[in-house]
Amino acid sequence: MVIILKHNATDEQVENIKSHLINYGFQIHESKGEQKTILGAIGVKPNFDTRKVKILEGVAEVYRVTAPYKLTSRDFKTDNTIIKIGDYEIGGNKLVMMTGPCSVESEDQIYRLAKVVAESGSKILRGGAFKPRSSPYSFQGLGEEGLKFLRGAADENELFVITEVMQISQIDLIEKYTDIFQLGARNMQNFALLKELGNTQKPVMIKRGLSATIEEWLMSAEYILSAGNPNVILCERGIRTFETYTRNTFDLSAIPIVHNRSHLPVIADPSHATGLRDQVPPMARAAVAAGADGLMIEIHDDPENALSDGPQALLPANFLTLVEELKSIAKAINREV
Amino acid sequence: MVIILKHNATDEQVENIKSHLINYGFQIHESKGEQKTILGAIGVKPNFDTRKVKILEGVAEVYRVTAPYKLTSRDFKTDNTIIKIGDYEIGGNKLVMMTGPCSVESEDQIYRLAKVVAESGSKILRGGAFKPRSSPYSFQGLGEEGLKFLRGAADENELFVITEVMQISQIDLIEKYTDIFQLGARNMQNFALLKELGNTQKPVMIKRGLSATIEEWLMSAEYILSAGNPNVILCERGIRTFETYTRNTFDLSAIPIVHNRSHLPVIADPSHATGLRDQVPPMARAAVAAGADGLMIEIHDDPENALSDGPQALLPANFLTLVEELKSIAKAINREV
Amino acid sequence: MVIILKHNATDEQVENIKSHLINYGFQIHESKGEQKTILGAIGVKPNFDTRKVKILEGVAEVYRVTAPYKLTSRDFKTDNTIIKIGDYEIGGNKLVMMTGPCSVESEDQIYRLAKVVAESGSKILRGGAFKPRSSPYSFQGLGEEGLKFLRGAADENELFVITEVMQISQIDLIEKYTDIFQLGARNMQNFALLKELGNTQKPVMIKRGLSATIEEWLMSAEYILSAGNPNVILCERGIRTFETYTRNTFDLSAIPIVHNRSHLPVIADPSHATGLRDQVPPMARAAVAAGADGLMIEIHDDPENALSDGPQALLPANFLTLVEELKSIAKAINREV
Amino acid sequence: MVIILKHNATDEQVENIKSHLINYGFQIHESKGEQKTILGAIGVKPNFDTRKVKILEGVAEVYRVTAPYKLTSRDFKTDNTIIKIGDYEIGGNKLVMMTGPCSVESEDQIYRLAKVVAESGSKILRGGAFKPRSSPYSFQGLGEEGLKFLRGAADENELFVITEVMQISQIDLIEKYTDIFQLGARNMQNFALLKELGNTQKPVMIKRGLSATIEEWLMSAEYILSAGNPNVILCERGIRTFETYTRNTFDLSAIPIVHNRSHLPVIADPSHATGLRDQVPPMARAAVAAGADGLMIEIHDDPENALSDGPQALLPANFLTLVEELKSIAKAINREV
Repeated sequence: MVIILKHNATDEQVENIKSHLINYGFQIHESKGEQKTILGAIGVKPNFDTRKVKILEGVAEVYRVTAPYKLTSRDFKTDNTIIKIGDYEIGGNKLVMMTGPCSVESEDQIYRLAKVVAESGSKILRGGAFKPRSSPYSFQGLGEEGLKFLRGAADENELFVITEVMQISQIDLIEKYTDIFQLGARNMQNFALLKELGNTQKPVMIKRGLSATIEEWLMSAEYILSAGNPNVILCERGIRTFETYTRNTFDLSAIPIVHNRSHLPVIADPSHATGLRDQVPPMARAAVAAGADGLMIEIHDDPENALSDGPQALLPANFLTLVEELKSIAKAINREV
Repeated sequence: MVIILKHNATDEQVENIKSHLINYGFQIHESKGEQKTILGAIGVKPNFDTRKVKILEGVAEVYRVTAPYKLTSRDFKTDNTIIKIGDYEIGGNKLVMMTGPCSVESEDQIYRLAKVVAESGSKILRGGAFKPRSSPYSFQGLGEEGLKFLRGAADENELFVITEVMQISQIDLIEKYTDIFQLGARNMQNFALLKELGNTQKPVMIKRGLSATIEEWLMSAEYILSAGNPNVILCERGIRTFETYTRNTFDLSAIPIVHNRSHLPVIADPSHATGLRDQVPPMARAAVAAGADGLMIEIHDDPENALSDGPQALLPANFLTLVEELKSIAKAINREV
Repeated sequence: MVIILKHNATDEQVENIKSHLINYGFQIHESKGEQKTILGAIGVKPNFDTRKVKILEGVAEVYRVTAPYKLTSRDFKTDNTIIKIGDYEIGGNKLVMMTGPCSVESEDQIYRLAKVVAESGSKILRGGAFKPRSSPYSFQGLGEEGLKFLRGAADENELFVITEVMQISQIDLIEKYTDIFQLGARNMQNFALLKELGNTQKPVMIKRGLSATIEEWLMSAEYILSAGNPNVILCERGIRTFETYTRNTFDLSAIPIVHNRSHLPVIADPSHATGLRDQVPPMARAAVAAGADGLMIEIHDDPENALSDGPQALLPANFLTLVEELKSIAKAINREV
Repeated sequence: MVIILKHNATDEQVENIKSHLINYGFQIHESKGEQKTILGAIGVKPNFDTRKVKILEGVAEVYRVTAPYKLTSRDFKTDNTIIKIGDYEIGGNKLVMMTGPCSVESEDQIYRLAKVVAESGSKILRGGAFKPRSSPYSFQGLGEEGLKFLRGAADENELFVITEVMQISQIDLIEKYTDIFQLGARNMQNFALLKELGNTQKPVMIKRGLSATIEEWLMSAEYILSAGNPNVILCERGIRTFETYTRNTFDLSAIPIVHNRSHLPVIADPSHATGLRDQVPPMARAAVAAGADGLMIEIHDDPENALSDGPQALLPANFLTLVEELKSIAKAINREV
């Protein structure tokens, strides 16, 4: 922690600040400049609330020196984390495609779409059985029945499964059917749920909250890592800004920044980021060009009658075309789809 | 729903749009203008995903006509909701003060502070026993022991209790000790928890999410009302913006807007909105002047050693001074503290 | 400037960083902690681009120590700036009311409204003769004729005038008619215009840009102060956020923060901040309670036919009622209207 | 315009609303639904202030039907605008590269860098002679001398010139030296300057304001088009959000949206969007993949001593490598660099 003192701080105030720092367990280094005095408070306290010092008389500014996350940071682990599900790798040179409908709507629907997913070369099938909806009057998912259909459809096509968990009491049930837990954007700071997911060993993909800073996103990963589960995937899915012509603002610059600060893989979700089918292909291409380790994309073969998010689903044929474009883009940066 | 057609929409496209609307169960009214044709799609479907129409060829824009919330709206219930706990009223002419420390830290601490609360004339004691923290390494609350201390301190001083619930499995436990459930900002869209709180009968105060629109906030209230619990209080606590000199931006204009759109009472929390003690009094005064039905304010008698959020806690003496100022402000708009 | 080194920075990198700092003219103080080394770079260079150091190998974070503004800061001038126009004071204990229509529309209109302004006890008449409009097809103001009407109406009622200047070539003309220059939100970072206004001696009121940080706002004031004009007033008028139920988010917490960091007076404009008449009175009351040194409020006696911003104008009768409420609120914090 | 009435609007209120609409010059179409009545107000008034209706008693919501821009919209002009400078095209299938230093610092510097630009295959040389700086104490540009150096360096290498204009009085001077006027983000709503640029015939590139919506950006283009200059280029350069790990949030989804709504070409500026050299290549690649019609990129051969924005400048060698990557990405979507 670095403390900048006010240029007119009195000796008494400075002594008071120092004695507080000592009481909080810090060692102090002092630098006197022409106009400002700086105190360096040394000691490893990543979660120290710097406002405790900011409110002391004579203090102008306080800066944290250590990032609040540890296990998540590249300082702690230099090499990229590559998550393995059997032989399959997430976070390696080959991009991961997570594809499927927003919701599992029927046995028939998910089996049909799983076939498309397999045909495209994607290895992971997505589909929601428990749906977080902003309205209590909207379709809330098929529940366990949906999980069974999803698993069956994946198995028949030799795919892995990713599906969303919304609350602690669903973890055991969902764990029976899924390969990867998905944590939704609105639950990114559901700390109780994060802790419990840290106690499982299956990979967890954390979607970035609508207004979560990159730092808060990494802190949510820290909850899971610190509880003992090292298999965390991050997923950028758009943030909330003032712009209204788009549903969200897809923050692609988060991708190189997370790669710089953390060793965890980053997936991008252009379907939720844009909310409209026409914008999915250009943003999918852009995400690959920006360095994403994979994409989550929604598809549907009857989007007009989809029970949720039909308007953002690609038709199977359009998805297959997109995959070909993505292969060329990946090649341009020496990666593969 | 109102659909604006593109000025160059073909007859075929228009027919296709109309047949979709009919299939979705709407009646159609058509208005042809000089440059634009407008379709009014009539039928009560508050949660219809308007993007389903937006993606059809020939459509320029789509607007929803009905707000997505019903029970929460002033259209549905004209009179202000006044919530009663025994004889005590929340949402009436007299402002409600919810006061206490951020966290219950010890039996002694909460008993000392409850005395200050009672002395100030506040009737509701706040204090967290389960704490949502962005870091897994921070103090997480005393749990049930904290609830016991809180209830005891309140009873000794004839106060009511408000405390936070973070997950479904805590509801039964907390219900034994509290008079009002508090739902935190980061859980505002924890829909599973909202539904369960709708099944209780104790009042629930919903804090506005950091990036929640007013509409989403009212939709979270709708979850609770639609499950059968009519006793919902809203709490504005600051939103996230680009400004960094403040912790959050206190959105006081939300207060008259919510009063216009909904019958539910609105409380303001200047402690979390500002995050720094010095800013709490001016913002508390402003909230009352803007028409808040009450305030939630954090106090502490040893803020430097508080286990959470000490820097935003008022000292007891400062709080008592503030209450006097608030009385004058309330009087200026014909209300009482 | 404070530089936090990466924990695995090599000796060579550290030497390179130090030699850069020395070349840039800084003295260096080094603090070695358990995990991190901190370099304090001492030397008064308020506008040094800290990214120059951030991009060097081995650097983890860089923090500025000195605020980039000097003359604007309370460090530089401890006492509140009180601006005098003749005997009249802006920034003193008595609140300033700047009242009038959005645009000067006709001689008759501004004379009628100036009478209302005088009757209310306001001393400053507002009215735009040159109007910044987001559409090239909207009313652009009466120009010099409008200035003449405005001055005449003010003189007849013993009022001062504030009116907007949009470009350098208008300064000489407007200076003949106005007592205070108003700089609009969209011109807050029109640096060429700021410099020229710094060469006048009449007071300048700077409206905060829609997405301007408080720091940038103070830097715009610095442009004028550093050019030799000490008479700067700041005006908060709402910032742009994700919320769509309001036109802007009125950032009232900026008021105590600016008072803390700067000696300049702060006016609040609830008319532009909210954009709708019904929200003006509660937000005007809140601004006074938050400590604003005055208010700018739009009124109109025929708002339905106003040529600009009619929907946010208060009717004269409502404005007179509001002034009475504001007097009570001001009294509650020992100020006067 | 579409007006949704309150479900409890009285007959008297409805009549009053209708008579206002008629007075404002609209024709009315009425649709009665089960719960809501909708009024369609027909008539071409793109800049009608819809708040005039919103404030009438009995009105629930008001929606605009026509976009406020006309000449800028794809409705008005279906084909892409291709801007020609001699034989050179901006907005065609081949991507445009605008490359050079942030500021012209000396004759030697700009001649050296122009050579790199030409070598890379870029055809447009960028460089600022008048610099908008947030601090009055920072380097403000070389002025006319800088323009001369810039033109000379371009001519020697057969390049075109783009440079920034900050105020009306600079237009004549800059027009002598430049091929394209650049309008900076902070001047995007400097309406006086926009109008004057509309009176020139040289192309104008409008940078998107930090918090400008896409609609406002297109309205600024409308100012220039409506004054008679059809040669407008748009430039996305990052918007302001809550995220602090990046300088701005690069809004790449704006690119397909602008292409959908307007016929004007869109350039992307990853240097200003990210503010740090390391992030420029991934974001440049992403912009091309998203469909940008070109890139503006800053380079410098001695960034540590650059007088402005050195930290975001690519070194010549890195820029040449990037161009090769961009060629592969462009090819993947059937375009060329």
